[in-house]
Amino acid sequence: MTPDETPLSPTPRTVVRRGKKRARRSREDLYAVLDAGFVCHLGVIVDGTPMVIPTLYGRLGETLYMHGSTGARSLREAVDGEVCVTVTHVDGVVLARSAFHHSINYRSAMIYGTARIVEDRDEKLEGLRVLMEQLAPGRWDAVRRPTVKELAKTAVLAVSLAEASVKIRQGPPGEEEEDYALPIWAGVLPLHTRWRAPVPDPLLSPGIEVPGHVAERAHTTAFESPALTE
Amino acid sequence: MTPDETPLSPTPRTVVRRGKKRARRSREDLYAVLDAGFVCHLGVIVDGTPMVIPTLYGRLGETLYMHGSTGARSLREAVDGEVCVTVTHVDGVVLARSAFHHSINYRSAMIYGTARIVEDRDEKLEGLRVLMEQLAPGRWDAVRRPTVKELAKTAVLAVSLAEASVKIRQGPPGEEEEDYALPIWAGVLPLHTRWRAPVPDPLLSPGIEVPGHVAERAHTTAFESPALTE
Repeated sequence: MTPDETPLSPTPRTVVRRGKKRARRSREDLYAVLDAGFVCHLGVIVDGTPMVIPTLYGRLGETLYMHGSTGARSLREAVDGEVCVTVTHVDGVVLARSAFHHSINYRSAMIYGTARIVEDRDEKLEGLRVLMEQLAPGRWDAVRRPTVKELAKTAVLAVSLAEASVKIRQGPPGEEEEDYALPIWAGVLPLHTRWRAPVPDPLLSPGIEVPGHVAERAHTTAFESPALTE
Repeated sequence: MTPDETPLSPTPRTVVRRGKKRARRSREDLYAVLDAGFVCHLGVIVDGTPMVIPTLYGRLGETLYMHGSTGARSLREAVDGEVCVTVTHVDGVVLARSAFHHSINYRSAMIYGTARIVEDRDEKLEGLRVLMEQLAPGRWDAVRRPTVKELAKTAVLAVSLAEASVKIRQGPPGEEEEDYALPIWAGVLPLHTRWRAPVPDPLLSPGIEVPGHVAERAHTTAFESPALTE
């Protein structure tokens, strides 16, 4: 079995039932979707009701790291509990001839797992490094590292990528056969996200130039997944 | 009490405890965040575990409408159950001098409520219209409306906006006082999303021009919230 053939979804809850043609089964596609972003939506159960929290993440191999304040109840509730982490990139609006077939083009990954709190100091630092490098490549080596006190205030959660599903929709609308003859314009209105020019902190000391790792990113496209399989 | 002073958060779970200075309390801010987008993350509980599903939504007054296939288990599970709906716009990366104070600029809304399935035909059509107009303004009047069969295949969920919280972070990093003197560049790398030129369906009949409601949106900024209060 090549890596591309390794099923992503060995469990009933990660078998894509709706929109099967949008399901992807390669781990490369999972990585491509996750690596293209840095904000996930973390689902936990608090007092019997679901809570969906936008938070930062980073991927290292088969592990997703998230972080938050040790004071945040949502993160405390997540520890050792089942969580669902979803990452979604919106690529455009699909304008069909029929209301029914309107959709969006998107890439999304859904991960189920148990959230483990990272206690080991080295893994905690590594989790934070991975998260920050995904947020801002090249940044970790340029900044002041966390103090013991700051580390104590930060909770790092780890979730395995073993149980995941990926759905991707790209391309023109799919219509009912008889609707193609309607005199209605149809197509896609794509969305495109770019990094703009860096805005210096008004309190920046004079004479500090924009570093390469920031300057190089400006004006490039964000949230791309060039590694997607066909 | 002016509308701006109406608290968004009458319940313990929508009182923002972490990052209080990022909390907003006006309904106008809630509307501004919701109206700027069309994809939410819907949290439901399925078999005792959380599930976070990206899905389309539209807002009409104090109601959020979502839709999906009547065959989707996640939607069936959501009906009459507690849900959490989160909408997040990412505006940029906040690059601090210290690793600890890195963050993102964002606008996010979190809604708690009971998901009601819309049974009334008129409300169902109205919910779909609202959702489609949020996805593609001007579209509803240009396309073939849903048939009875299509309506039967579509589930429309309604959630009240009564219980919600809004968090917004904008601006430069906030650092430890002593870190401002460090010789490290700090600031914000903003993200900017635009609609691109429309891509016609390859199966489009000849002679059909791009309609105004599509052409006018191309090259404009997406996901903006100009109505936010200071």
